[in-house]
Amino acid sequence: MPHFRLTLAYDGTAFVGWQRQATGPSVQALVEDALAILDARPVIVHSAGRTDAGVHALGQVASASLDRDISPWALVRALNAHLPPDVRVLDATVVDAAFHARFDAKSKLYRYQIWNGTAVPPMLRRYVWQVAPALDIAAMDAAANRLRGRHDFAVFQSVGTDVPDTEREILASRVSVWRPDADYTEAAGTLLRCEVEGTGFLRHMVRAIVGTLVEIGRGRRDPGWMSELLASRDRSAAGRTAPPEGLCLVRVTY
Amino acid sequence: MPHFRLTLAYDGTAFVGWQRQATGPSVQALVEDALAILDARPVIVHSAGRTDAGVHALGQVASASLDRDISPWALVRALNAHLPPDVRVLDATVVDAAFHARFDAKSKLYRYQIWNGTAVPPMLRRYVWQVAPALDIAAMDAAANRLRGRHDFAVFQSVGTDVPDTEREILASRVSVWRPDADYTEAAGTLLRCEVEGTGFLRHMVRAIVGTLVEIGRGRRDPGWMSELLASRDRSAAGRTAPPEGLCLVRVTY
Repeated sequence: MPHFRLTLAYDGTAFVGWQRQATGPSVQALVEDALAILDARPVIVHSAGRTDAGVHALGQVASASLDRDISPWALVRALNAHLPPDVRVLDATVVDAAFHARFDAKSKLYRYQIWNGTAVPPMLRRYVWQVAPALDIAAMDAAANRLRGRHDFAVFQSVGTDVPDTEREILASRVSVWRPDADYTEAAGTLLRCEVEGTGFLRHMVRAIVGTLVEIGRGRRDPGWMSELLASRDRSAAGRTAPPEGLCLVRVTY
Repeated sequence: MPHFRLTLAYDGTAFVGWQRQATGPSVQALVEDALAILDARPVIVHSAGRTDAGVHALGQVASASLDRDISPWALVRALNAHLPPDVRVLDATVVDAAFHARFDAKSKLYRYQIWNGTAVPPMLRRYVWQVAPALDIAAMDAAANRLRGRHDFAVFQSVGTDVPDTEREILASRVSVWRPDADYTEAAGTLLRCEVEGTGFLRHMVRAIVGTLVEIGRGRRDPGWMSELLASRDRSAAGRTAPPEGLCLVRVTY
């Protein structure tokens, strides 16, 4: 009974999120259904993070056990043959039966992309949040840096979710311009990347942080506001929750 | 009567190409129709290159004259308000009335993306040609280099098009691995970019070159075959025409 660790990428545009739900197609349901066909029995899949509706992944990790003895290479091929092209299994490895994609994850890296400009390049439009007014990137980066370390992130917890322990540890947090080549006309805008790596996240935490960073980038607040917010623990004080399409789960570390 | 130079980006997936056709939606028709609404009369738009069905652009250039006196900034905004999100005007500048986007172009840079691997990352799938078997990138780059200079490219001209003068000048031609960050799991594949910059191109020329480069990358032929093909002028001798979705018009130089 081999136990597998799967690495998955998906375009979240068309999905209700990772988690299986009655309201629409989920990545979990697609992967579980594909595995159930291979194994001729229901299969449960656990993922490192339950990404929300519209959120993407480049390196989601999932774990599952099969009855059938199959090589990792054959498993990747068979799964991809059953999955739609907006969900791909990039890799599979046989792991110890005790491995659990969520409980064993040491950290996760999320990236949020902002198109700061008037016209969004069409090839990017499903993967960015457009913010038209000019943003002060240095101020946003200074504010992002204030998140590093262990803090109570209650201020960035989604309203309605009441996880009792809201302390989390952020390992890295930065805002930078992404300009690997000169493909995008400068006149049209700038692609910003907000990257946050942490040992754990509250629901909607990254998107609430990004909404707050944009308030600071627009000059409505200064970077010190980030520290004030953390101390306040008051969700209504922070910026709006940024839309899901800019967010991507890039990597999970074990 | 201001004359404009427009820079456009589009995702070509849903279009029959740049050129207006009865068979389906074209980029030219969308841009001309949006300008006609602004100018309250029919407007003709000329582009630097007539990209084929399914081919993308990051920096297509077009020229058009309006009766209405409008600032470049207002023109960009008004056009984008009328265009669908898969076509964006990135920039507009007022130019001399004699400027013609096609006849004045000095060179064009095309990029063809190949996903060399088993599983295509979903965010790339509309913009790559998947080639699963391992490719010899050094051999492909050596063959691409043989295209530089002035040659008779009849061998790479689309069957059925008979342009009498098939000599063209290629300024740059290379194949390289594109790995700006570690987003894509190595196990799943490698993103290759074939870039060809030239003063002019024959119909389907870049895609026929890429099909030939892939034959060489798979080891069926050696890089010297590229020079033999140029000398042969026999279209049936070259590789297959690569599919359109990997191709993008990146930049036009004037």
